[in-house]
Formats: sequence, C-alpha cells, structure tokens
Amino acid sequence: MIYMDNAATTKMSQAAIAAMLPGMEKVWGNPSSLYAVGQQAAEALWSARERIAACLGASPKEIYFTSGGSEADNQAIISAAWEGARRGKKHIISSAVEHHAVLHTLRKLAKAGFVVELLPVSAEGLIAPEQVAAAVRPDTCLVSIMYANNEIGTVMPVAEIGALCREKGVPFHTDAVQAAGHLPIDVAAQNIDFLALSAHKFRGPKGIGVLFARRGQPLASLIEGGAQERGKRAGTENVPAIMSMAAALEEACGHMAEDTTRLLKLRDRLIAGLAQIPYSVLNGDAVKRLPGNVNFCFEGIEGESLLLLLDDKGVCASSGSACTSGSLDPSHVLLAIGRPHELAHGSLRLSLGRDNTEQEVDYVVRSVAEVVAYLRNMSPLWQEKLAGQRAFILSK
Amino acid sequence: MIYMDNAATTKMSQAAIAAMLPGMEKVWGNPSSLYAVGQQAAEALWSARERIAACLGASPKEIYFTSGGSEADNQAIISAAWEGARRGKKHIISSAVEHHAVLHTLRKLAKAGFVVELLPVSAEGLIAPEQVAAAVRPDTCLVSIMYANNEIGTVMPVAEIGALCREKGVPFHTDAVQAAGHLPIDVAAQNIDFLALSAHKFRGPKGIGVLFARRGQPLASLIEGGAQERGKRAGTENVPAIMSMAAALEEACGHMAEDTTRLLKLRDRLIAGLAQIPYSVLNGDAVKRLPGNVNFCFEGIEGESLLLLLDDKGVCASSGSACTSGSLDPSHVLLAIGRPHELAHGSLRLSLGRDNTEQEVDYVVRSVAEVVAYLRNMSPLWQEKLAGQRAFILSK
Repeated sequence: MIYMDNAATTKMSQAAIAAMLPGMEKVWGNPSSLYAVGQQAAEALWSARERIAACLGASPKEIYFTSGGSEADNQAIISAAWEGARRGKKHIISSAVEHHAVLHTLRKLAKAGFVVELLPVSAEGLIAPEQVAAAVRPDTCLVSIMYANNEIGTVMPVAEIGALCREKGVPFHTDAVQAAGHLPIDVAAQNIDFLALSAHKFRGPKGIGVLFARRGQPLASLIEGGAQERGKRAGTENVPAIMSMAAALEEACGHMAEDTTRLLKLRDRLIAGLAQIPYSVLNGDAVKRLPGNVNFCFEGIEGESLLLLLDDKGVCASSGSACTSGSLDPSHVLLAIGRPHELAHGSLRLSLGRDNTEQEVDYVVRSVAEVVAYLRNMSPLWQEKLAGQRAFILSK
Repeated sequence: MIYMDNAATTKMSQAAIAAMLPGMEKVWGNPSSLYAVGQQAAEALWSARERIAACLGASPKEIYFTSGGSEADNQAIISAAWEGARRGKKHIISSAVEHHAVLHTLRKLAKAGFVVELLPVSAEGLIAPEQVAAAVRPDTCLVSIMYANNEIGTVMPVAEIGALCREKGVPFHTDAVQAAGHLPIDVAAQNIDFLALSAHKFRGPKGIGVLFARRGQPLASLIEGGAQERGKRAGTENVPAIMSMAAALEEACGHMAEDTTRLLKLRDRLIAGLAQIPYSVLNGDAVKRLPGNVNFCFEGIEGESLLLLLDDKGVCASSGSACTSGSLDPSHVLLAIGRPHELAHGSLRLSLGRDNTEQEVDYVVRSVAEVVAYLRNMSPLWQEKLAGQRAFILSK
C-alpha cells in the first residue's frame, strides 16, 4: 500500500504511540484530583502544555486542549464573534476557500445576524493582504484566514495578514490544521490571536487538538460543565492523547527542516510527473504550497472512479477533502480558484508524508497516468482527442 | 496505592487498551476515505456503533460519538431546547443535583430566555416521578434528570420518569455518565430520548463518549464542519478510542451482574465501617444507590485536609466531584439534600471499582477513622465533644 493521503490523516509515529501508552497505563488519574496519581496526570498535562506552547511561540496559559481542529476553529470564531457583538461589532472577514469547520460556523453566525464577508482568492488560491486591509471596517470583529489550504495546499501570507490585523486592532484567527507540524509557526511574530490545530494531521492521535487564544482574547465555552481548561472547555482532560500530541508536535517541529527538504523534492517530482499527463492542470500555487501537497485536475475524469482504480493499484489518495467525501457537490475550493464545475468534480489530491519514497512517487505517477488513460479510453470523444498522445501514456 | 475514586476516572481495562492499539497501529485511516485503509476504519467505526447500541438497547443510527459526557450532555440539551423554541416551547425541567455539564448548559439557556425549573430533591437526593409529572407544562420542551448522581450515588427512577415523559410527549434526557457500564440501561424500555455517557468512567479511554438521540429527535451541531456523524458532529472520528470504548462497554455490561454483587458487598462493608465513626452521616440513599458509591460527611472535618492525609496513607479519594476540585464552593448536591454549609464542605466520596478488595475496604475504614480523629483532635472543641468516644476510635 502506498499511502498518499496524509492531509486526511496520518499514521501515528512511534514516538506518539510511545507517549500515549504511559498515559493509558500509568498516568491515568484525573488531573483535577488532589492525590498523587491525579497530580501526576496534572503535571503531565502541564508539561504537554508547555511543550506545545514552545512549538508555537505561545505561552502555556494560551493553550486550550480541545477534541480536535474543528472544535478549536468553532470555539475561536464563536468567541471572537460574541465578544464583537458585545461591543457592537458584527462584521467578519474570511475567505472562500476555508475548511468547512470555519465556513459552516460562519454560516451559523450569518444566520444569527453577523455580516460575513468571504474574500475571493486568486487563481492560485491566495488571499492578498491588501484584500484584507481593504475589507476591514470599523465594525470588523474577526479576520479568519487559514494558514494553508487543505485541498490545494496554498499557503496564505499569514504573517502579513497578522501584522495588518494587529495594526487595525482586529482579532486574527487562523485554521492551522494543515500547517501545524509542517510549516514554522510563531504566533507572536506572526501576530496570530487564535489558532487551531489537530494532532492526527502530524502523526499524533485522533480526537485531540489545540486552540491557541492570545492572552486578553475572551473565550466563550462551547462545552459547559466542569472548570477544566481554566473554565473554557469542560470535560475530563484527555491526558494520554495530550501527552502523545506533545510528543508528535515536538517530533514534527524538530525534524521540520530535513522533512521539508525531502518532501519538496518528492512533491516537485510528483508534480512534474503528473503534469506530463495530457489535459492535466495543477491546482494551487507552485511555490507557496505545503511541502507535501499535490492537487491536479484531469479533464474528463470523474474523481471517484479515479480513486477507486488507484485503490486497486494500492494507492491511497483523495479527491479534495476527506471531510466532504460522500458529497456530490464539487469542491468549493476548486470553484473558488475558477475551475469549471466539470473539472472541480475530478480533482486528485496526493499528500505526502514522512514515509513516502521516490520509488512510490514514480509508481504513483505511472498509476495515475494509466488510470486516467484507461478512463478516457472508455469515451469515444476522448479517444479522438488523445489520438496523437496515447502513445506517450502507454510508454510510461 | 488504594484507588477509590472510580467515579472521577477509571484505569483502562486490559481489554480496552487491547482494543485501542490496533486502532492506532493498523486501522488508522480516515473513515471518510474511499480506499481500503479508510474503509477498514469505517467498518471498525460501524461495528463499534452497533456494539454500543446493543449495550443500550438502541439502534446504531441513534448513536453519535462525542468527545465525552460533557459534550453529549451539552448537545442533547441544546438540541431539545432549540427544537422546543422553534415550536414556541421554552420550559425545561431538571433537578438541583445535576452535574455541571447539565446545570451550566441550562444556565446558558436561561440567559437566552428559556425558563429552567430545577426540581428539589429528597433528603436522599431523589426526584419523585410525581414531581416531574406535576411540573410538566404545555410549553415544556425537555426533562433532564440524571440516571445516577456523581457525588452521592443516588439512582433516579429513570424508567418511571421516562414513561411519564413519553405519555406527555416531552423529550427526556438523562445524564448517564455515572450509570453506563454500572447499571442496566435500556433506552427503549426506559423511554429515554437522549442519553449521555463517557467511556473513561467504565474503564474505557478518556476523550470519548456517546450521545444517544432517539430517531426523530432533531439534533443541533455543537461543532460544525465536516459531515461526520451524519452531519451532527464534525471532526475526524476518533476511531481507536471508539473501538476501545465499545470493548470497555461490552466488558462492563457483560460482567455487570457479578461485578454488582461484589461491589454491593464491598460498598455496604465500607458504609457500615465508616458509619461507626462518631458524628458521621451517609449522604444519599442507602438502597437506590450506585453499587460502587460511598459518600459521607464528618462533622467538623474540612474535605481537603481529609483527602491530603488519606493520600499520605495511600488512599485516593475525592470530596464530591473531580470536576469542581479547586473550587471553594460547597457541593451543590449536598446543599440540595439539606446538609448545612459546614458539612457540605467536608464530604468524602469513595467510589469502588473492579480491582478493590475487602482488605482495601478495611484499610480505608481504619485510615479514615484515624484521619478524622487526628483532625478533630487538633480542635479543643472536638476534644471535649469526643471525650467519651475517642477510645473507640483508637481501638480500631
């Protein structure tokens, strides 16, 4: 099996698994308890908080543990919105290519009377800082722009947007689910006020994530109950998963430079290979792009058939976001970068991880080329269109 | 170490750990993905859903996975409330002894214009079905009464309340966090419409729980985003924890009869022993009580000192709920059953689990007696009060 869907989820690293087991077998007390086994859990929790904060340039008290990236995105946006409303500010700026955890939360807020402005993106999926600057109004209570796009991998100019939000006094949230552990993050230098991340995207466990909220930014609880997480997130802390997440994030950040060098080489080899397929087009920016992300459209190809045939060849890939699979709607991201409906149905996302090799990349290029040719070959229209080019595909 | 705080959290069982590992190492795909490793995860998820549903007398499609009991309680209550509001019904009935996951959610709803009626409980902490029947109004949109109390262990007449709610056409939610895996639950026979449970209370993992919502009861999303859990709970499913929870619940329900017999014997031995301590009083009902729960007040004793000295003797116990530790407020549950403020500050909760033994029970009785005597001995008032009884304590 060749796994190239690391943007959907990653296999846990050995370090992450090793950090989880003592949380399950030894440090299993309730960290709210006074006795030793509880206090050991409280110490493990605090240590994980410090280590995760250090990876992000944050202070430990600015780290709130959530059940994942979606919850963190929801809480950040709802918190900023209601704090804005309290001060008579109900305008929110975001982008057309955000993850549904952001877009659907904004839709809920729009129904509740907020004015949500989704900025359009360039053909590469980029938001320009100037767009944000031009959109800010006196009643803007939040700017939410993702760190890197989950489908096409475009990396947004987060530091520039952060700087201008700080200058204008508007809270800035970024969904960093695809970026954390893969790109350097420094919430201080980048002037980020809220940031969401999810452990299972960087070889940590599922069911755990982080909301970073800058000191002084009021937080509303999504989940009410006990006083955990300084009263902002109820529920017994998932200490084993938190310990594991800290190990995974430290590992990812510690190896980021070398991993990035490796991934960039693999990514660009994959892009170069797939670009040889006739009537193919790369989605997203060629340079401002996640080191592991590749996303192509192939004219005349329906995404689901492509994935099923790739699965037959042992290749795990996806068509856009895992979170929208089963949906028959075309990708909102591909539509936003101007792909026509028929292309937006047929994208292929390959997301590389630490375990992928050059041999795998070459195998995947060959497999995709064969599958695309096979599917097009079923259509007389495409047989004619490709008459002069089929030789190339078969020779690979 | 003698762990008697199983109501705060439990040590994971070997079966639960064994069920978690393959989820981390083998079935780690994203269940929303089309390819084999994703579909294996989807199958594991469905199997867990079926097995958990079977333990509760529910149908698999009525099971929604959440990050724990608090989230499930929040979502149930908010869903029923907003559905009620849509139909012009804004009256909610609950009890004064609910967990804060329920009470704080109700407080939020009260601020949003709902009329929340908290029924008082008897001296044993019981709600009578007649109280609920009398409180139901034409505009009642929800009855939320816990299955068993987390502090004093009182088991509510859930089936009777369910029957009368069904008869009156009012949705019935029960916080079963302390009951699941410990008491028989049958949502069909008991006419329960919403039920919350948390895996780490029955030797499953932390960070995972279940919201049961009866077919036809509309659910609102607390966490927006991807279409997981039939669009009602976004976020990549925590498959390893869900597999582990299913194993833990099956194990707990499979051994419930024999465990209960054992626990009842231990519990009643513990109660009989602690009742020998002068000026002690059992909180909660002697019979309608969780099989593992013991809760006492000792006159003149401050809870925190008691716990710290017990910790020195290797006994892990709590003073009421772990979720409110660090709080200086007296327990709302003890106040509700009529304990005066000074007593409500000094309760001791011992919650037994599968691993506890008769020897441990006897040791704990001795230890508590010694610690209580020691603390009282520091007060001249108590020296005098106990002059005739100290001999008894020292002789234990």
